[in-house]
Amino acid sequence: MKLPLMELQDRVSEFQVSLQKKGLEGALLVQRADTLYYTGTAQNVHAYIPKEGKPLVMAYRDFNRAQQESAWGVIPLTGMSKIPQYIQGAGLSLPKRLGLELDVLPVNNFERYRKLFPDALLVDISTEIRLQRAVKSAWEIARLEESAQIYPLVLEFAKEVLHVGMTEVELEGLLEGKARALGHGAHVRMRGFNSEFHLGAITSGARATEASCFDGPVVGQGISIAHPCGGSMAQIQAGEPIVIDMVTVVHGYQIDQTRILSLGPVSEELEKAYEVALEIEEKVRCALIPGREAGEVYEEILAWVRENTPYEQNFMGYGKSRVRFVGHGVGLDLDELPTISKGAKEVLKAGMVVAIEPKLVFPGVGVVGIEDTVVIETEKGARYLSQIPRELMVVKF
Amino acid sequence: MKLPLMELQDRVSEFQVSLQKKGLEGALLVQRADTLYYTGTAQNVHAYIPKEGKPLVMAYRDFNRAQQESAWGVIPLTGMSKIPQYIQGAGLSLPKRLGLELDVLPVNNFERYRKLFPDALLVDISTEIRLQRAVKSAWEIARLEESAQIYPLVLEFAKEVLHVGMTEVELEGLLEGKARALGHGAHVRMRGFNSEFHLGAITSGARATEASCFDGPVVGQGISIAHPCGGSMAQIQAGEPIVIDMVTVVHGYQIDQTRILSLGPVSEELEKAYEVALEIEEKVRCALIPGREAGEVYEEILAWVRENTPYEQNFMGYGKSRVRFVGHGVGLDLDELPTISKGAKEVLKAGMVVAIEPKLVFPGVGVVGIEDTVVIETEKGARYLSQIPRELMVVKF
Repeated sequence: MKLPLMELQDRVSEFQVSLQKKGLEGALLVQRADTLYYTGTAQNVHAYIPKEGKPLVMAYRDFNRAQQESAWGVIPLTGMSKIPQYIQGAGLSLPKRLGLELDVLPVNNFERYRKLFPDALLVDISTEIRLQRAVKSAWEIARLEESAQIYPLVLEFAKEVLHVGMTEVELEGLLEGKARALGHGAHVRMRGFNSEFHLGAITSGARATEASCFDGPVVGQGISIAHPCGGSMAQIQAGEPIVIDMVTVVHGYQIDQTRILSLGPVSEELEKAYEVALEIEEKVRCALIPGREAGEVYEEILAWVRENTPYEQNFMGYGKSRVRFVGHGVGLDLDELPTISKGAKEVLKAGMVVAIEPKLVFPGVGVVGIEDTVVIETEKGARYLSQIPRELMVVKF
Repeated sequence: MKLPLMELQDRVSEFQVSLQKKGLEGALLVQRADTLYYTGTAQNVHAYIPKEGKPLVMAYRDFNRAQQESAWGVIPLTGMSKIPQYIQGAGLSLPKRLGLELDVLPVNNFERYRKLFPDALLVDISTEIRLQRAVKSAWEIARLEESAQIYPLVLEFAKEVLHVGMTEVELEGLLEGKARALGHGAHVRMRGFNSEFHLGAITSGARATEASCFDGPVVGQGISIAHPCGGSMAQIQAGEPIVIDMVTVVHGYQIDQTRILSLGPVSEELEKAYEVALEIEEKVRCALIPGREAGEVYEEILAWVRENTPYEQNFMGYGKSRVRFVGHGVGLDLDELPTISKGAKEVLKAGMVVAIEPKLVFPGVGVVGIEDTVVIETEKGARYLSQIPRELMVVKF
């Protein structure tokens, strides 16, 4: 599916307003999700977006595919040193103030641009990009809704294949295989430096309660010290909660969803906690309304958990390992804005998409919780992007 | 499996020689593969390696796991601003010349270090790290040999599940699932900015011949414009070569292997080309000897292909899309040194590990070729890290 020209025009026009506000004559973008967003191709390109007029999409690999894909039209880039002359060749003057993605651009790459634009002040434009990308268009919401359809089918498949004694990674591999056959794009993008992510966290029982490097409430034990997140080689047992936290991606749009399965019933204590997680998710969803500050919603939820449940220490991790958010933006990257997190100043807007993931962690026992991705729309609260049964799913065995 | 302290000591001592040669008082490392290499944990740490003495491993998430994993011992890092005082607290003076990984470190992160060390000159130390990591120890070779054992089992599984009409992504998903069940760590690490990689290229027929953004001879068509590498939703047909190019990883060590399967025989032309690919692989293997320059080996192979085969335009891609290498280093990252590539100045050493991947691309038809990972040892040529049948694998259907 090609990105429609009108969609691209809207995105670039809005970005140009940011450039003008910041007093920049243009921005040179290279991060893959950003260039896909503004140019319509995920090939290797440099996209120069001037403060007004058409962007210059310079493709170095693969040129032919980029040309077929980007509705802007593409010019071949045979060497980075030619970028300034291509800009001038398009009738534009060289920028004196140039925006770059300084949150992701490595220093050595930056130094090359500094040599190419010796007279320009190089300015970080990543916050403006991230804030723009946080608000999804109708076209993007439709893609996210498509992406959300894979997970429920994978869950049904999980119920079929699940059995006592299978390893977490065996289950993970089967579910990923199923997702791929259904059109899941496999590679999950993250913007953050050093961030790594595979499928999600397919993890059960006590393994699900281990903290690790990934900044999430449930990450899994992982398969080795070198890969300390995700499934492990441990066997799944009856009666323990099995977390199926999984990202699927279609046309680049990523959606994040979690349900809990178990082989036979889990303990009453965990069942009770699960009901509370459902209640928290609904509270978050209803609090996600245009005009509110993200950090304020987080504090409100945290206070509610503290005052109304016995789970303050179990909420979003355990004790010192708790993470300080209850939701995060998703889209072309998994770590988009807004985060519903401590101190987050972003003001919520209609069109923002958030994965809400209240999870309760009981060390040595297991994790219960839920995750759905919602779109912020009106003061009535956000809307779920997919309908998946919300009960704890007990599989007979 | 924990990294033995002696292994860590050897690595750090060798790195300290590089620091001293470069006149640096220390290096502050954060890239995950680097910190795993020097500290033994893949948790989030800052590793300060002084020019002599014990490294300071400061862990911020997850501290407990890092402490269990790193034989150096770990101190908790509650905020980046504390790094200078931890260095001084360890009885070290603040570095006036400090090494950083400037090939991967984003500019905004770099600026934070600049504020933490206002009097220090910040110097790129990434080339020294990459050159050191290129030469594997006996312990690392043993890990790579373990990692190499998964692929042959996956190939046997592929022969069982392969059938006419299955999609490329369906096959890819099944093979990845099998690999995971066998202990494959799933996430494949790459150092390069904007580099993305999932499992490899499971691709067949004409789809295998399409170029894309990934810098490899065979990348696959991909599932959408947003994910333009790897398997597609197209169906596998009888008589076309099916490329099973796959990376597996155990204990962080990645190995890269390729074989060709087909449902029924491929054309005689492709069979003939395949024999040539085998011959090229052996030529590369025999040319990988200590003391030679990597780029010189590349030119020699390229000349041989030009003079002795009709495949000059088909070698490592087609026409303008050909890539300019025939092998690349592998280990904790997929894009390690040395690359056996145009102009590469690296001098080959015993212990270097290289994935050799001669592939011949016939547009509109398909790809044949082979890939094995070898370790450079003596003047007799490099040694294969695994033994996999080398013939084209024809599956009856």
